Amino acid sequence: MQTVETIAKALNARAEGKLDLPISSAAEPASARADQIALAMDPKYAPGLAQGAARAAILWEGAEWQGYGLEAAIFVSRPRLAMAGLSRAFDPGPEIAPGVHPSAVIDPTAEIGAGAAIGPFVVIGRGVKIGPGARIAAQVTIAEGARIGAEALILQSVHIGARVVIGDRFIAQPGARIGSDGFSFVTPEKSGIEEIRDPHALGQRGAIREQAWTRIHSLGTVEIGDDVEIGANSCIDRGTVRATAIGRGTKLDNLVHVGHNVQIGEDCLLCGQVGVAGSTKIGNRVVLAGQVGVSDNIFVGDDVIAGGATKIMSNAPAGRVLLGYPAIKMETHVEAWKNIRRLPRLFAQLAELRETVSKLAQKGSTEQPKG
Amino acid sequence: MQTVETIAKALNARAEGKLDLPISSAAEPASARADQIALAMDPKYAPGLAQGAARAAILWEGAEWQGYGLEAAIFVSRPRLAMAGLSRAFDPGPEIAPGVHPSAVIDPTAEIGAGAAIGPFVVIGRGVKIGPGARIAAQVTIAEGARIGAEALILQSVHIGARVVIGDRFIAQPGARIGSDGFSFVTPEKSGIEEIRDPHALGQRGAIREQAWTRIHSLGTVEIGDDVEIGANSCIDRGTVRATAIGRGTKLDNLVHVGHNVQIGEDCLLCGQVGVAGSTKIGNRVVLAGQVGVSDNIFVGDDVIAGGATKIMSNAPAGRVLLGYPAIKMETHVEAWKNIRRLPRLFAQLAELRETVSKLAQKGSTEQPKG
Amino acid sequence: MQTVETIAKALNARAEGKLDLPISSAAEPASARADQIALAMDPKYAPGLAQGAARAAILWEGAEWQGYGLEAAIFVSRPRLAMAGLSRAFDPGPEIAPGVHPSAVIDPTAEIGAGAAIGPFVVIGRGVKIGPGARIAAQVTIAEGARIGAEALILQSVHIGARVVIGDRFIAQPGARIGSDGFSFVTPEKSGIEEIRDPHALGQRGAIREQAWTRIHSLGTVEIGDDVEIGANSCIDRGTVRATAIGRGTKLDNLVHVGHNVQIGEDCLLCGQVGVAGSTKIGNRVVLAGQVGVSDNIFVGDDVIAGGATKIMSNAPAGRVLLGYPAIKMETHVEAWKNIRRLPRLFAQLAELRETVSKLAQKGSTEQPKG
Repeated sequence: MQTVETIAKALNARAEGKLDLPISSAAEPASARADQIALAMDPKYAPGLAQGAARAAILWEGAEWQGYGLEAAIFVSRPRLAMAGLSRAFDPGPEIAPGVHPSAVIDPTAEIGAGAAIGPFVVIGRGVKIGPGARIAAQVTIAEGARIGAEALILQSVHIGARVVIGDRFIAQPGARIGSDGFSFVTPEKSGIEEIRDPHALGQRGAIREQAWTRIHSLGTVEIGDDVEIGANSCIDRGTVRATAIGRGTKLDNLVHVGHNVQIGEDCLLCGQVGVAGSTKIGNRVVLAGQVGVSDNIFVGDDVIAGGATKIMSNAPAGRVLLGYPAIKMETHVEAWKNIRRLPRLFAQLAELRETVSKLAQKGSTEQPKG
Repeated sequence: MQTVETIAKALNARAEGKLDLPISSAAEPASARADQIALAMDPKYAPGLAQGAARAAILWEGAEWQGYGLEAAIFVSRPRLAMAGLSRAFDPGPEIAPGVHPSAVIDPTAEIGAGAAIGPFVVIGRGVKIGPGARIAAQVTIAEGARIGAEALILQSVHIGARVVIGDRFIAQPGARIGSDGFSFVTPEKSGIEEIRDPHALGQRGAIREQAWTRIHSLGTVEIGDDVEIGANSCIDRGTVRATAIGRGTKLDNLVHVGHNVQIGEDCLLCGQVGVAGSTKIGNRVVLAGQVGVSDNIFVGDDVIAGGATKIMSNAPAGRVLLGYPAIKMETHVEAWKNIRRLPRLFAQLAELRETVSKLAQKGSTEQPKG
Repeated sequence: MQTVETIAKALNARAEGKLDLPISSAAEPASARADQIALAMDPKYAPGLAQGAARAAILWEGAEWQGYGLEAAIFVSRPRLAMAGLSRAFDPGPEIAPGVHPSAVIDPTAEIGAGAAIGPFVVIGRGVKIGPGARIAAQVTIAEGARIGAEALILQSVHIGARVVIGDRFIAQPGARIGSDGFSFVTPEKSGIEEIRDPHALGQRGAIREQAWTRIHSLGTVEIGDDVEIGANSCIDRGTVRATAIGRGTKLDNLVHVGHNVQIGEDCLLCGQVGVAGSTKIGNRVVLAGQVGVSDNIFVGDDVIAGGATKIMSNAPAGRVLLGYPAIKMETHVEAWKNIRRLPRLFAQLAELRETVSKLAQKGSTEQPKG
C-alpha cells in the first residue's frame, strides 16, 4: 500500500499535510474515492476536487491545498512527468504466474534467464536466449535463434521471428509481429513501377508487360536496441540481407508497419498506424504522428516532427516540422489550404478585373481614333 | 431446413406461391441452384434469374414473379434490411463445440455463465466474469478481472485485457486487441511536439533538446456498451486514469486503432483502418469511412459523417459531412479540387491580363504627352 | 553447403574463377566474411569489396572481377532478379518440426496431405482439407471446411476462416486473418450515408434520424488463387453472398485490409496498410503502394499503379498512374501542388494588377472630361 509520502518520493516531489495517509490508487478529482489520490495538476481540475471524496491530491506548484478540503497534497511542476512516476507506482502490471507454465513448449536448447514468468501455450524455439526477469504472456511464439535482453515484457500472442536480436527492457503489446518476411518481389523484365520511378522517365511508363512476381526472400533479421516498446498488432519486417534496425529508446504505437531494411534511430515516437516503407532511414528523436506514411529509400533527418497523416515522399532535413500530402513545412501547408480556400474569391476578382480591363481596352480603342 | 414461408416470416415480408418449398441457402440469381433462394431485390438483377436454376426468389415490391419462371417469391421494399434478416437466418455461425475444451486454462476463480462454449487453448484469468451463452473460439486470452456480458461471440486469438468491462451480445473478430496499453510518453523537459502545439508558438519549435521518453503507464481500462462489434486485428488502448469508452451499438471494422482515453458514443460506425488518437471524444451515430484519422484531444459531434481517408484535425460540429485532409465540408472539398484543377487556366488568364494591362498602361503613358 | 558453382546454377548465371569455393551465405560487400559471397551487383557497391573479406562476389555484367582481389565471381544483368534466386537458395526457412505436434487439436475428419509439418497448439476444424507438403507454424487456426492447396506455408497465429478456399503454394505471414466477417450494417430507415451517396442528393443529407445498426451476416467465403502471399496481420473479409476473391500470383503486404465481396485480379501487389473497401473490383497486375485506399463499389482497371497514400475514390481506367487524395493522374498531381505553391505569388500579382488597373481606370475617367 502506498502513502502520500511514498508517492511523493516516487515522484521526487514535495508533499504537505498528513503524509502517512494510505492511498490505494489514483483517480480524476470528480470521481475519486476517499482512499484515492486525486489528479489535479492544473488549476482547471480544481473544481472537481469538491465533487470527489479524495483526502489527498497531486496539485500544481503553489496551489493553496487546504482551501480544497484536502488532508494532504503533493506538488508537481511538470504534470505529465509526474504522471509517469505516479502511473508506474500504481500499475499492478499483467498477472503472469512465476515460473514456466506446464503447457509451454520450450526447446531444450533455449536459455531462459533467472526469474522468468512464462505463460500458457508459449512456444520458444531452438537456441533462443532470453535475459533475466522476462515476463512472457500466453501464446507468445519466439522462433529459433532469437535473442532478447533482460527484463522483457512480452504480451499475449506476440511473435518474435527467427534470429531477431532485442535489447533490455523490451515491451511488446499483444499481437505485435517482429520479424515477418519483407515484401520484396521482382519481375523477369522491368516492371511498370521501375519505369515510372526512373528519374529520366518523368513518371511515364513504357509498354505494359504481363509479368508475374518472383519472391525475394528475407535473409536479414531485425535488431532492436534497449528500452524499445512495440504496440499492439504492429509489424516489423526482417531485412533482405542486413537487418532492419530500431534504435534505443524508440517507441512504436499500435498497427505500425516497418518495412524491410528500414533503419530507425534512437528516441523516436511512431504513433498509431504509421507506415515506413522499405530501406528508408529515419534519424534520432523523430516524431511521426498517427497515420504518417514514409516512402521507401528516403532519409528523414534527426528531430523531424510530422503531424497527423503527413506523407513524407522525399528526403526531409533535420529539425523540419512537416504536414500534408505531399509533406511540406507545416506552416506552408497551413498557408496552402488557406490559399486554396481563397480561390473562389480569386476567381471572382480575376473575372471582374478581366471585365474592367476589357472595358478599358475597348474605351482605349474607341478613344484612339479621336487621338 | 428453411422454407419460403419461414424465410418470409424471418424477414417479416409477404410471400406468394409455393410457400413450403425447401430452401438450403441464398445465392445470387445467376448462380443459384434449385434448392437456393435467388437474391434479386432490384429489377437490375432480374436478368440473372433466367440464367440460374432458383425456383424461389426475393424480389422487389411489385415484381411480376411468375414471369421469371419462379414457383414462389418473397417481396421486400428495403433490400439491405432484408439481407440482414436473411443472412442471420442462413448463417451457420462458427463451430465451437459446447462446453469447455480440456486444453483451456481457466482460473478457478473465473465465473463462466451457463451454456458457454470455450475452444482449445483459451486462457481466462483470475476473477474474470463472463455472462451466459458465451462462445469463445480457440486461443482467446481474457486477462484478470475482465467482465463480459451475455451472448458474447469472441473469435480466434482475440485478447481482452485486465479489468476491461464489456456489455451484452459482444462480437470480436479474430485478432482484436482490447485493452492494450496507451501510447503515452513524456520527456523531462518540454519536447518539440509540446512546443509546436502551443497555440502561442504558431507551429514554431525552440532549441532542439536530446531527450529520452519516459513511459506513462495505463491505469485505466476499457468500457464497452451492449451490442458492440470489433473487427479483426483492431486495437483499443486502455485509458490513463479513466476508461477508454465505446458506446452501445457502435461497430468497428478491421485494423481500427482507438487511442487511450477516447470516448466514442452510441451507434457509430468506424470503418477499416480508421484511427482515433488519444483523449478525443466522438458523439453518437458518427460514421467514419475507411482510413479516416481523428487527431487527439478534439471533439467530433453527433451524426458527423466523414468520407474515406478524411483527416479530422479540429473540432467538428454535429451533423457535419466532411472530406479531405485537412477535413473540410464535403462540398467545399469537392469544390476546392475543382478550383485547383482550374489553376493552370487561371495562371494563363492572369498572364494574358498582365500583358494586356501592361500594353494599356504603356499606351496610356504614350498618350499622356498628347493629352 | 553451396559453392560458387551451385549458386551460379541457381541464378542461371555465368561464373568465373574458383567455382568450387564453399559459400555459407550472402552479405553486403563491406561486411562480408571469407565464407560469404558479397552482393555487389552495381558498380556503386564495388568500394565495399575492399573493406570486406569476401573471396567471391556477385557482380554486374562486365565487371573486372580480378581487380577486386576476388577468387571467383558470378555475373548478373538484372540484380533484383538475381536476388530472388540467391535469397531462395540461402533461406533456411522457418523451423517447423516434421509431423504433427502432439499438442495440435485436429478434427478427425480433417484431411492433411503427405509430408505435413504442423506446430504446437494448431487447431484444425471439421472437414478441412490441406494439400501435401504443408508447413503450419504454432497456433494457427483453420476453421471448418477450409481447403488449402499444396506446399502451403502458414506462419504463427494465422487464422483461416470456415469454408475459405486457397490454391497451391500459399504463404501467410504471422497474424493474417483470412475470412473474418464483412463489415455490413443497415438501419431500418434510410441512413445519412445512403442519403449523401445518392447521386441526386449532391452530398446533402436529409433530417437526422436516431437509428441503430442491424448486422448483415457474411454467408460468402474467401477464394484465393495459386501463388498468393498475405502479409502479417492483414485481414480479408468474407463475402456477403458470393466470395471475396484474390487472383493467382497476387501479393499482399502487412496490415492490408480487404473488405467483403472485393475481387482482386492476378499478379497484383498491395503494399503495407492498403485498404480496399467492400465490393470493389481490382484488375490484373495492379500495384497499390503503401497506405493506398480504394473506395467501395468501384472498379480499378488492369495495370493501374497508385503511388503511396493515393485515395482512389472513383473508377480508374486501365494503365492509369495515380497519386493524391482524391486520386488523379500522377503528373497532374505533381503539377497541382506546384500550382498551389505558386498561389502566394499569384495573389500578389493579382493584387498589383488590380492596383494598376484601378489607377488606369481612374486616369481614364480623369482624362475623360478632357476628351
